[in-house]
Amino acid sequence: MRDLDERFLRRALQLAERARGHTSPNPLVGAVLVREGRIVGEGFHPRAGEPHAEVLALREAGELARGATAYVTLEPCDHFGRTPPCSLALLEAGVSRVVVAAREENPVARGGLARLRAGGVQVEAGLLEAEARAQNEVFFTVQKKGLPFVLLKAALTLDGKVAAPSGDARWISSEASRRVAHAYRQWLPAVMVGVGTVLKDDPALTVREPDFRPFPLMVEPPPLRDPLKVVLDTEARTPPTARLFQKGPRGEPARVLVFVGEGAPRARVSALEEAGARVVALPREGGRVDPERALAFLLEEGVDGVLLEGGPRLAGAFLERGLVDKLALFLAPRILGEGRGLAEGFRVERVAEALRLRLARREWLGEDLWLEAYPEG
Amino acid sequence: MRDLDERFLRRALQLAERARGHTSPNPLVGAVLVREGRIVGEGFHPRAGEPHAEVLALREAGELARGATAYVTLEPCDHFGRTPPCSLALLEAGVSRVVVAAREENPVARGGLARLRAGGVQVEAGLLEAEARAQNEVFFTVQKKGLPFVLLKAALTLDGKVAAPSGDARWISSEASRRVAHAYRQWLPAVMVGVGTVLKDDPALTVREPDFRPFPLMVEPPPLRDPLKVVLDTEARTPPTARLFQKGPRGEPARVLVFVGEGAPRARVSALEEAGARVVALPREGGRVDPERALAFLLEEGVDGVLLEGGPRLAGAFLERGLVDKLALFLAPRILGEGRGLAEGFRVERVAEALRLRLARREWLGEDLWLEAYPEG
Repeated sequence: MRDLDERFLRRALQLAERARGHTSPNPLVGAVLVREGRIVGEGFHPRAGEPHAEVLALREAGELARGATAYVTLEPCDHFGRTPPCSLALLEAGVSRVVVAAREENPVARGGLARLRAGGVQVEAGLLEAEARAQNEVFFTVQKKGLPFVLLKAALTLDGKVAAPSGDARWISSEASRRVAHAYRQWLPAVMVGVGTVLKDDPALTVREPDFRPFPLMVEPPPLRDPLKVVLDTEARTPPTARLFQKGPRGEPARVLVFVGEGAPRARVSALEEAGARVVALPREGGRVDPERALAFLLEEGVDGVLLEGGPRLAGAFLERGLVDKLALFLAPRILGEGRGLAEGFRVERVAEALRLRLARREWLGEDLWLEAYPEG
Repeated sequence: MRDLDERFLRRALQLAERARGHTSPNPLVGAVLVREGRIVGEGFHPRAGEPHAEVLALREAGELARGATAYVTLEPCDHFGRTPPCSLALLEAGVSRVVVAAREENPVARGGLARLRAGGVQVEAGLLEAEARAQNEVFFTVQKKGLPFVLLKAALTLDGKVAAPSGDARWISSEASRRVAHAYRQWLPAVMVGVGTVLKDDPALTVREPDFRPFPLMVEPPPLRDPLKVVLDTEARTPPTARLFQKGPRGEPARVLVFVGEGAPRARVSALEEAGARVVALPREGGRVDPERALAFLLEEGVDGVLLEGGPRLAGAFLERGLVDKLALFLAPRILGEGRGLAEGFRVERVAEALRLRLARREWLGEDLWLEAYPEG
């Protein structure tokens, strides 16, 4: 029984992955309805504003939902938001048992399991919970901290350099590493760089041929889409001709948001707007755009995750303020000696005060070491 | 047959390890004599000036050496040095077969196998050759480059820092890493630091409780001994009260060699000599002691390997000049941000010119990553 439960729940987790990169600010959710050992309905939440996974699975099952078991990756919501509560839908369809992986923690949405139990449905929760929580770490982190989830991604040499003294950074890591790195762009709804990186590298910040290894539950890749491109640019120095304004590899119009400091030169702001950017002026802190304000603004806009891609000063500012939730590092077997460090301006006086990381992934991609890590404490 | 040959040859390699750290400038060598499937004599070269491994094994075997097979880790020497050639000793003892792992490349010592063959002995070479060459990489490297083998050892954070901005470096890596690091001190006959490291850390540079994992063939650990302690100290600033002058953990008197620049203050030089140091003045290059001259001096003194332990400027100077043969790096899951880099003063303008490393070992010691690597090209 437990084996079968796990199999169907894993299937639900895999379904959820098909929307990775599309659901912000909602979680990924998958649902499978099973009757007499056969799947009679499947669904996943495709994007905010569209039906929840449970509803799509119920639609597919129709009358066969009666007496079925529902496998859902996340506790069914119990509130009237853009859609009616899924707990109610499951009850009305006559489902007799619900198996849930991760419990909902949001007090607004919570209560689905209780309502189901009260309605006479057999309810179980906690199977594959670790996998389900990992799948939605953005969602759970945002609930806890009230700011977007921030992933700092960097390719560095074994001696910790992200660029040569000239600023040249092409390429520190291997092509295999860079393909994995593209999967992070697909995952998070926004990618952020400092204007220095725009001026130096002129990156396109699109999603090209990602290798989805970061997401072990992914069986069918999601439709690719480019992230919102966010530039922290106090003085509005981003060139309106920058590559990030260009259409993406699938013809998508670029979505660009430039945070400038209040009082940034008006003419340059207008030029950016003409190039297609949305320009948002924020109060300065120590002369610069305050990262935390930028993050808060993004979350209000429904952007629940940010991939921080460079450069060293931006990374240092985020680390300094404790705004980084996770790191994805690609260490290449090279020594640069002098060069740009990972996190400039982040400073502690003693080794004992260094930021400690908990390594969650340590995997070799050829000669590159791929790490995922969480700041501790 | 081959299985048995390999077993006895491996035993010879293990015997050789018992002298690790004691044979400089000679190689590690082990020998096993086998007659009718039984070991009748064993030996390893214990230190320069003492008998070779083959001779000790022959002594133990006595008359039983006649008709025996000799397993030797390195081609028996064929020249009259401090001892007569081992090729001759094997011939005279009536050994009928010789199995050798690594062939000798030194034209002075080479020829042992040819002489044996000419004397009617059945000769085989090349079994376990990779292991045997790795065991004696110091010896083979010195033959090729004419300078001591240099191993750069460092503990660094994931962002490549070896110390906090204050200079504090205690401790970047875990205790498990530090115990492995001590094995490198036992291996190489000398440990070298810059005077900056002496002034900042006041290290003892002794061998304490090493973990011998770097040497997979080691079964019985060698007797521990402290390395020659070498300081590069252009202006003779090493304090005569430094810890490195103290007796070692086993009561050994410290052996200290300080390289100063010509014209270093006479009074400070005298004080160092009174503290027990040997002080050697070398011509300056760009105001400083030239690392290559220091290495050449050491090799003339029979010091065939140097463990480079710090700090960043010394490492940078050695890397800049292509003097590093191997790196042993311990990467700890921490981020320091600002701080001292691995190799200061080593500088290339583009990533494509960075020093590339071939990783020969990548092993986790708890949360620390332990790497051994060779500079490429």
